[in-house]
Amino acid sequence: MAAADDMSLTPLDSPLYGNLLSDEEAASLLDAKAEIAAFLKFEAALAAAEAEAGVIPGAAADAIAEVAGALDIDPASLGEGTARDGVPIPALVTLLRGALPEEAAPYVHWGATSQDVTDSGLVLRLRDFLGMAEGRLAKLGDLLAQLADRHRGQVMLGRTRMQQAAPTTFGLKAAVWLSALSLQRQRLRELRPRLLTLSFGGAVGTLSALGARAEAVERGLAERLGLSVAPIPWHAERGRLLELGGWLSQTTVALGKMGQDLVLLTQNEVQEVRLQGGGSSTMPNKVNPVSAEALVTLARFNAAQLGLLHQAGVQEQERGGAGWMLEWLTLPPMLLGCAGSLSQAQRCLEGLEIDPGRMQGNFEAALGLPLAESISFALAEVMPRQEAQALVKAACRRALNEQRDLLDVLAENSDLAVDFAALRDPSRWLGSSDRFIGKALAEWRDRG
Amino acid sequence: MAAADDMSLTPLDSPLYGNLLSDEEAASLLDAKAEIAAFLKFEAALAAAEAEAGVIPGAAADAIAEVAGALDIDPASLGEGTARDGVPIPALVTLLRGALPEEAAPYVHWGATSQDVTDSGLVLRLRDFLGMAEGRLAKLGDLLAQLADRHRGQVMLGRTRMQQAAPTTFGLKAAVWLSALSLQRQRLRELRPRLLTLSFGGAVGTLSALGARAEAVERGLAERLGLSVAPIPWHAERGRLLELGGWLSQTTVALGKMGQDLVLLTQNEVQEVRLQGGGSSTMPNKVNPVSAEALVTLARFNAAQLGLLHQAGVQEQERGGAGWMLEWLTLPPMLLGCAGSLSQAQRCLEGLEIDPGRMQGNFEAALGLPLAESISFALAEVMPRQEAQALVKAACRRALNEQRDLLDVLAENSDLAVDFAALRDPSRWLGSSDRFIGKALAEWRDRG
Amino acid sequence: MAAADDMSLTPLDSPLYGNLLSDEEAASLLDAKAEIAAFLKFEAALAAAEAEAGVIPGAAADAIAEVAGALDIDPASLGEGTARDGVPIPALVTLLRGALPEEAAPYVHWGATSQDVTDSGLVLRLRDFLGMAEGRLAKLGDLLAQLADRHRGQVMLGRTRMQQAAPTTFGLKAAVWLSALSLQRQRLRELRPRLLTLSFGGAVGTLSALGARAEAVERGLAERLGLSVAPIPWHAERGRLLELGGWLSQTTVALGKMGQDLVLLTQNEVQEVRLQGGGSSTMPNKVNPVSAEALVTLARFNAAQLGLLHQAGVQEQERGGAGWMLEWLTLPPMLLGCAGSLSQAQRCLEGLEIDPGRMQGNFEAALGLPLAESISFALAEVMPRQEAQALVKAACRRALNEQRDLLDVLAENSDLAVDFAALRDPSRWLGSSDRFIGKALAEWRDRG
Amino acid sequence: MAAADDMSLTPLDSPLYGNLLSDEEAASLLDAKAEIAAFLKFEAALAAAEAEAGVIPGAAADAIAEVAGALDIDPASLGEGTARDGVPIPALVTLLRGALPEEAAPYVHWGATSQDVTDSGLVLRLRDFLGMAEGRLAKLGDLLAQLADRHRGQVMLGRTRMQQAAPTTFGLKAAVWLSALSLQRQRLRELRPRLLTLSFGGAVGTLSALGARAEAVERGLAERLGLSVAPIPWHAERGRLLELGGWLSQTTVALGKMGQDLVLLTQNEVQEVRLQGGGSSTMPNKVNPVSAEALVTLARFNAAQLGLLHQAGVQEQERGGAGWMLEWLTLPPMLLGCAGSLSQAQRCLEGLEIDPGRMQGNFEAALGLPLAESISFALAEVMPRQEAQALVKAACRRALNEQRDLLDVLAENSDLAVDFAALRDPSRWLGSSDRFIGKALAEWRDRG
Repeated sequence: MAAADDMSLTPLDSPLYGNLLSDEEAASLLDAKAEIAAFLKFEAALAAAEAEAGVIPGAAADAIAEVAGALDIDPASLGEGTARDGVPIPALVTLLRGALPEEAAPYVHWGATSQDVTDSGLVLRLRDFLGMAEGRLAKLGDLLAQLADRHRGQVMLGRTRMQQAAPTTFGLKAAVWLSALSLQRQRLRELRPRLLTLSFGGAVGTLSALGARAEAVERGLAERLGLSVAPIPWHAERGRLLELGGWLSQTTVALGKMGQDLVLLTQNEVQEVRLQGGGSSTMPNKVNPVSAEALVTLARFNAAQLGLLHQAGVQEQERGGAGWMLEWLTLPPMLLGCAGSLSQAQRCLEGLEIDPGRMQGNFEAALGLPLAESISFALAEVMPRQEAQALVKAACRRALNEQRDLLDVLAENSDLAVDFAALRDPSRWLGSSDRFIGKALAEWRDRG
Repeated sequence: MAAADDMSLTPLDSPLYGNLLSDEEAASLLDAKAEIAAFLKFEAALAAAEAEAGVIPGAAADAIAEVAGALDIDPASLGEGTARDGVPIPALVTLLRGALPEEAAPYVHWGATSQDVTDSGLVLRLRDFLGMAEGRLAKLGDLLAQLADRHRGQVMLGRTRMQQAAPTTFGLKAAVWLSALSLQRQRLRELRPRLLTLSFGGAVGTLSALGARAEAVERGLAERLGLSVAPIPWHAERGRLLELGGWLSQTTVALGKMGQDLVLLTQNEVQEVRLQGGGSSTMPNKVNPVSAEALVTLARFNAAQLGLLHQAGVQEQERGGAGWMLEWLTLPPMLLGCAGSLSQAQRCLEGLEIDPGRMQGNFEAALGLPLAESISFALAEVMPRQEAQALVKAACRRALNEQRDLLDVLAENSDLAVDFAALRDPSRWLGSSDRFIGKALAEWRDRG
Repeated sequence: MAAADDMSLTPLDSPLYGNLLSDEEAASLLDAKAEIAAFLKFEAALAAAEAEAGVIPGAAADAIAEVAGALDIDPASLGEGTARDGVPIPALVTLLRGALPEEAAPYVHWGATSQDVTDSGLVLRLRDFLGMAEGRLAKLGDLLAQLADRHRGQVMLGRTRMQQAAPTTFGLKAAVWLSALSLQRQRLRELRPRLLTLSFGGAVGTLSALGARAEAVERGLAERLGLSVAPIPWHAERGRLLELGGWLSQTTVALGKMGQDLVLLTQNEVQEVRLQGGGSSTMPNKVNPVSAEALVTLARFNAAQLGLLHQAGVQEQERGGAGWMLEWLTLPPMLLGCAGSLSQAQRCLEGLEIDPGRMQGNFEAALGLPLAESISFALAEVMPRQEAQALVKAACRRALNEQRDLLDVLAENSDLAVDFAALRDPSRWLGSSDRFIGKALAEWRDRG
Repeated sequence: MAAADDMSLTPLDSPLYGNLLSDEEAASLLDAKAEIAAFLKFEAALAAAEAEAGVIPGAAADAIAEVAGALDIDPASLGEGTARDGVPIPALVTLLRGALPEEAAPYVHWGATSQDVTDSGLVLRLRDFLGMAEGRLAKLGDLLAQLADRHRGQVMLGRTRMQQAAPTTFGLKAAVWLSALSLQRQRLRELRPRLLTLSFGGAVGTLSALGARAEAVERGLAERLGLSVAPIPWHAERGRLLELGGWLSQTTVALGKMGQDLVLLTQNEVQEVRLQGGGSSTMPNKVNPVSAEALVTLARFNAAQLGLLHQAGVQEQERGGAGWMLEWLTLPPMLLGCAGSLSQAQRCLEGLEIDPGRMQGNFEAALGLPLAESISFALAEVMPRQEAQALVKAACRRALNEQRDLLDVLAENSDLAVDFAALRDPSRWLGSSDRFIGKALAEWRDRG
């Protein structure tokens, strides 16, 4: 593909859309150059471990390490070989051998299979990616923790099933968003040791070419790469990657839920928050909630790729082909989507303006109806609850018809010994909001 | 839906297909009756906890517990209300109140929202389900451990990218299958405490109706139900369920990989294993690998539902509607699919016959070509490796053309000081097979 | 599965959720009883066609027709056989033979394979289903056509990217919904002849058992079943079903888009429409847009199943196993989801109340900002367009800050010879709304 | 994204993997440069149509056409604007205006909305793509038609549910593959007029800025772009794109089924066909069926993206945001995947070697068991069918146990007046194979 360097087809890779839906830093950790570098790192470490175990000459290993460390391979130069062999390693090994002194060349890739290199190379890049993702998650969570704390007492309408329901606080809303990240941080710590594992099994997962020295090579290779050793090769058992995919998609879904909430809050009729950016090409009055929409887009994108990654998990026999290549089409977009979502969420929150006046205004415009549940529980202290609910329901209708405040309607039409005015006090209906925020903040800190 | 009891539409529910693709025991843990029972259990425990915390009268709580424990609600009787309200709880609460003495009726469902009941009711059934699934996983893993151990030395052809590659053992194959279950067992233990959590937040997640007594009620309710308390309500933050979905799909994918392997091994041209069942309606000669195919089917089914479950995770504001209902369409089939896969896998393995003669025969029919890698490494001890590979490649061609054994061809055509006969000894090319099996067995035991 | 009749696990089959998300009429066309009836119809027609072609004795065909027409097979009685054979036909043929006179019994299922029966039986039920779906589509389109026509001039805010943008009409909105159904009607007519095709190929698609009489039997069987004959058996080439799946999902997605619009319009802050139903268990003030939410739910459900149905399309060799069974798990839920969506949409629209006052009120509350585009084009007649846009943008800000009407602000602050009051006339900014509605109505009628 | 030009992250865009899984020609029709060119083409045609209709000055239109035709916009230069605005058009319009004489600049993009440009620009590129795809489909079908015709009489084992079943011909197998393409060609012709439709509605789908001249502009613009006019704007009604997605995925699934068949036929134990390419990095004996595997990979990839594209179809109100951006992430990969599959299939078939000897050999090695169905029907002419089936089943077992030919066993053990030798004649069991091939070839030609 001669013109490949100029291609920019999918928005995740595209200079046109990349800043909207993707992430440059993640891209640089994952792209073809990084991939080739990881492959070369594996080959160098393999040679070193094999030399140490007496499998190949030390001089050969030294030469391989030197050349692999300095070699600059143009990804396009491997394209033809990859198309022919179905994997880039044979072409890469040929190039690497060609750059080595004659006596060292034969010892490259000794006893390894292509998948050992590509899988371990993937894991190396995943380690970098997860480091970056964890850092971003931490920053994002801290931002949300600040938001939750700062707006602990900021009353706003709670909405359920897309309808105004009862009052809540903006702090509680942010704390719920935060709670998803706390669990994601915990899950990341649990999956990391399972994932950051060497892939090394040779042709069919027996390391047959290494005979009795296999264990030593395996250990030395893992140590050099900073990875752990799996009990048994995972060439065709892809659960580790499926688990990672779940984490990636759960992260984007959690942020997509936040994005969806923010989109809804920016509607002109609601407008309790404002976001940066989003001009229109024809309407001077518009500001589109682009960054929050992008979070929803990426959540839905990764959700579908996760299903596909699991389809790819049904791999045949000792090493699969079709399913393995399907991973290549699935996992990198998910990683980029997750990174794009993390950075977009950061930008989105940094540009977020809360409008307490509008929150209060919307609450007041609701004529006290969101207090209906609280009021009916208050009335239930002096009358049977169903009666209380019926009374409140009738008053709700009257308040709506007459566009008057529910508590006024009730106070006027009741001879009950109830201090209706006192029911306007948030402490009467914010319930455990503050307590829950506190617990969510503590959970974030405790799992930090 | 009058005739609903007679419906049997999707194979997971169908008397026609249920034994093939679903699971009766799981069905009984999850069906509408079990669902209603869990709802009633929640309402009873809520009343008890509220009585203890002084929110409602103890006599009311006693009456509620008694009636809820005895009430037999026909699921169909809630159908109309569910269609109207979008959730079965209002109709259920009405029925429950109607069955209670007048003085107790108002105290049912005090301060809870429908989602508290349905979510917590779901978690209660999930606990039962996971108990069952863990038990089956244990049995299945033990079966695989036995298989791996018993066939530790059973040589067979290893196949990669659908081609014969190099020798392996059936024990190693079974150990790889087992290794997936070991990790699934570990993951299940990690997710369980996150998942088995009370859902309790009231109308908008503030528990406003319970005021200062909310914490006590929450604690008492959780204790009675045997669930833990989440730091903050998870009405619209569905990561716990997404994580469960990942586990369900990873389980079916792991078993689907095994099923795919078995299907391939039953091919007439391979026939290294035989399965039970699978007659044809027109061909007397056929035995179809039905049980192994079903494992593949269920793996692909759950993979796609997982993607959908993640789509459902983007829920709006304090409590969503469309996404929440989407979970109802997604999670039960996944649970049944997972249970069906576990029971089908058990039957499949119990009926599995290994054919060592055929394994040996296929190995021999391969004319020694699967030893090509080993031989080239052996030759590489006495000549440069590329030269060895070229020599072996030429010999492979000749062996194929002349239909003779590769080692014979090599021995005949070489004046090298290589003991070719010795290369027929499995110890020369089984590499770490035995070691890996041992580690996989140890891992299974250690995580048991 | 002994208790299978009592199962009700997935909401599509469930007496609890069936009225909300599924459809009773479709269920009765598709359930296990209808399935078995279609199988028996196939076997009777096959025998008749074979007798006519001289393959089997006429008396045997008569007996088969009689018994197959009268036999009442309990789906559960086929459960065990289905689990064993991976398909219900062997067990069904055994039952059918058992009910026949000894001399007729051998001639049942002569030369057919199980898949001929199940696929053709599916097509027969699909024909009934599509008849029903087409009728519902027609009614629904007529309802939307009425809505579009009746509200042709009903001004409301148009919203893009979740923000108020510029005025439109409710008629245009309904006409856009309608336009999707017009195309779906057209697509249905195109796919029907491809889909309603006999499946008949015998064991491996050669009809070998029928020798030279195959063509006559094929023709006679197709005629009796009212199906067309495909050029070549489609046992393993499932494009016809994939195309149907696309139609089903496109239908639910079109209705899901309508549902999503309606949900957004019912928000309290917008409330330009009202729907029936949707009570809350704890909040007397709430009406949830349940029926519109269900449309979104079913759209997302079918979208994912479609992807899975395509996965199932990769079937092996002459007839697949795992992919074929995957269709059974995928297609019936899609059909139910589509039928449920069509009936839910009908109920939703029948209960729809439009609130012209609120539409007008929201428009006015927008302070004329949605006219910004129109105004800037009007101004562009007397000044450069960018200047006009800048002027309007500044005026928008001022209108917002001072909470005054944009046209007032502009009129006051401009010495331009522009008749700002005239810009309040809808004919100045409704553009082609009426024309588009007319074309959409004509398209609906023309394709009727 | 400064380094964007160097990115190569997803295999569809990557110089590393592009030749394996993607397609350079399609890439050049779809990439960012082609996208920008289509945008500019739209803006030029819009200006010309508006000048003709008297909306803008002719001189301005001429200037716009000239500049838009010559402008070379670096995609990266639009990246920042796209990220800010959520769509590249505002930044593109700004650049275009900047390149125009002052008097023409204001008339760019007059009355259009960003989505008019991006959607119509997409349709223009889709037209090019479909032209290319149709050509490739024609070539591929012709190749398959030749294969089917040439191997009309080539007997081979038919396999169902992964087991040898009964004999078929390679010609019939190829004809079944072909039959999928015949229908795809028909479907393409039906969808094309629906798809190749101008998108033009202005801010909210009313074309309000164009007043009474809208219809003339619409017509003139469509003529200039060679597109038809939809009855009503489809900004938020995405059925056309969903239908295209279905076609793309059905194409890749049809080729994926062929790929799966070929992979299975290349297994060493079967090896009835051979493919080009597919070397191993460590095993000199291996040839991996890479090109056929890639067809399976791309089929599964597109299947999942189709489900996601349908998710994206639920777009809000007059124009959506999140769902619209989701299309951008979904459709280009599907187009590339389809193009990659078409070109890979071509290469795969061009390199395909059929091995008639092996087909015959495998058939013979099956000991006549695949004739079991035919034999039992032949016997059923002289005895009851069940008896015949039982007799054949017993003989099958004996043939297997004694490794002898089924017909020999039967001939030896039967005193029946059956000419068993005559049953070896393919005309006795190839049934309608030849007839079906003929019909499939005719269908391909008739729809050409």
